[in-house]
Amino acid sequence: MTKPLLRVLNGQAVWPPPMWLMRQAGRYLPEYRELRGQAGDFISLCTTPALAAEVTLQPIRRYGFDAAILFSDILMLPWALGHGLAFKEGEGPVLPRLTTGQDVSALDPSRVMAAVAPILETVQRTKAGLDDETALIGFAGSPFTVACYMVEGGGSKEFARIRGMAHGEPALFASLIDVLVESTVEYLSGQVTAGADAVMLFDSWAGVLSPRLFALHVIEPTRRIVAALRDRHPGTPIIGFPRLAGVLVGAYAAQTGVDAVALDTGAELSVATGLVPATVATQGNLDPLSVVAGGEAMAAEVRGVLDGARGRPHIFNLGHGIVPQTPPEHVAALVKQVRAA
Amino acid sequence: MTKPLLRVLNGQAVWPPPMWLMRQAGRYLPEYRELRGQAGDFISLCTTPALAAEVTLQPIRRYGFDAAILFSDILMLPWALGHGLAFKEGEGPVLPRLTTGQDVSALDPSRVMAAVAPILETVQRTKAGLDDETALIGFAGSPFTVACYMVEGGGSKEFARIRGMAHGEPALFASLIDVLVESTVEYLSGQVTAGADAVMLFDSWAGVLSPRLFALHVIEPTRRIVAALRDRHPGTPIIGFPRLAGVLVGAYAAQTGVDAVALDTGAELSVATGLVPATVATQGNLDPLSVVAGGEAMAAEVRGVLDGARGRPHIFNLGHGIVPQTPPEHVAALVKQVRAA
Repeated sequence: MTKPLLRVLNGQAVWPPPMWLMRQAGRYLPEYRELRGQAGDFISLCTTPALAAEVTLQPIRRYGFDAAILFSDILMLPWALGHGLAFKEGEGPVLPRLTTGQDVSALDPSRVMAAVAPILETVQRTKAGLDDETALIGFAGSPFTVACYMVEGGGSKEFARIRGMAHGEPALFASLIDVLVESTVEYLSGQVTAGADAVMLFDSWAGVLSPRLFALHVIEPTRRIVAALRDRHPGTPIIGFPRLAGVLVGAYAAQTGVDAVALDTGAELSVATGLVPATVATQGNLDPLSVVAGGEAMAAEVRGVLDGARGRPHIFNLGHGIVPQTPPEHVAALVKQVRAA
Repeated sequence: MTKPLLRVLNGQAVWPPPMWLMRQAGRYLPEYRELRGQAGDFISLCTTPALAAEVTLQPIRRYGFDAAILFSDILMLPWALGHGLAFKEGEGPVLPRLTTGQDVSALDPSRVMAAVAPILETVQRTKAGLDDETALIGFAGSPFTVACYMVEGGGSKEFARIRGMAHGEPALFASLIDVLVESTVEYLSGQVTAGADAVMLFDSWAGVLSPRLFALHVIEPTRRIVAALRDRHPGTPIIGFPRLAGVLVGAYAAQTGVDAVALDTGAELSVATGLVPATVATQGNLDPLSVVAGGEAMAAEVRGVLDGARGRPHIFNLGHGIVPQTPPEHVAALVKQVRAA
């Protein structure tokens, strides 16, 4: 096992830490914007393997990151289940609002693998374009976060609808989570079979729940997905990202079985790593806005992350996705600083 | 000192815990909606002492909470500094965007105390309407959160502008925080003089910052405000609410000097109270959405909070403000359950 990222996920403290950045393929890169202009809508881009693989590889060529991450979207799973999905420019995703048991019954797990076939082909093509040192990460949204978009009909500030459903209609909500758990296992298993070296579960809205609901709808579904993937693909590591989990990051790391926990921007490393078991690797957590500023402001933040990560298995990353207004030369300076650590 | 809330803020573990609810005066109450229809715009309501005091007292009459909290808004301070402010129905607050040093210089601390005079009169009137067991809490927004609204021009999902300014224009940002620290001290000191038994600092967006910026712009300004208020009003307790601070809640509680730290919905109490010094009281943190659901869902969440709070100085509250769609009878059931703990 020579890939540095996989060594960390196997529990080794590699230094300097291997690095990649959430949303490293995307709008801040001129080569992405150029290709994006030629492609159709966002869903077409995600389901055209030649284009999606090219986009996935762009940041690897430019920066030599230690991992490529499949270019796709967490909402491709509900799309594959037959739930509607559209991306409106400047507005984010728009979905029909799931409100009833009939809406859950209308989701069709039997069509998922056919629908995601082009995405799995993207994984294969990307893998063929990577050298032996660079890992390929597949991913999916976590059931709770995917459910957020399905129940809210898109993003939200307060997520009052889904939190209301989780409290007030527990059986309905559990049935939705169950469908998503099973489909997510199939989808991620397909990505591993297609060549993903590791997979990551993005739970972007894990932080909106009470501790009781976090245990039920974040920890437990993640544990089930991890157990099923372990069973089918022993040795393929799994990274979990319970964003904004706050003090619950320790319970998440200890109880889900993930190999690594990704930490968000606010998760101060000296405290967070005290809550996470020593056997679980960490990933993160540079403030993406510091990369927009660049210079000494960014350098000071990077030092903070490196100081907090030293001595434990850690993957350098951001605490949230890179933002479109990030100057690409700041990313180059970031790579240089981390590589020199 | 007989008021149960003040005994807790003085470090005593009172049981059942005294209780009040963030946004306990507001739209979920029919008597509020009736009065609101008679008043002018929201700012007029906040600056008309007879009406604001009546609104503050409504939930005390209905539920007998252990504290009334001044009915006002954290943005009344920038308004008092001469920064524009409007509340648009369904959109939330709208402010001019502060972007330059000139914008900071245009803020006029000399006009604050005259502008907030009606608010201080509300404090006096409210105090006169409370019995000897019920505490009156004054409040202000924390400098960082108030700055968020001033720099973003309102609410925001990602707060990219203010985070960019904090990283990229540290001197400008520090000058804004300085003005807000000084004005907040004057404003809260005025509330104490007018009769507030305790004050609370709301830092609703504390969680969007990196740990380095959290120390600079959340902990340090709060520490300065607490120190100045202690100096002027020894014995008046201060509650801090660093919402979404996650694992940084311990540093906040230990380093700011607050008497109590309010915990948000996700702050699981057994972990959070392990990070907070035993000498600092806690407050919170029932999921407000569980009160919308009511019944056994709410009861289970309430038991979780009570179990986590038992044995330490704790004030029962929500983890965020009560939401407008909350049935008032669910609040009555909540009070009954907590009082029977």
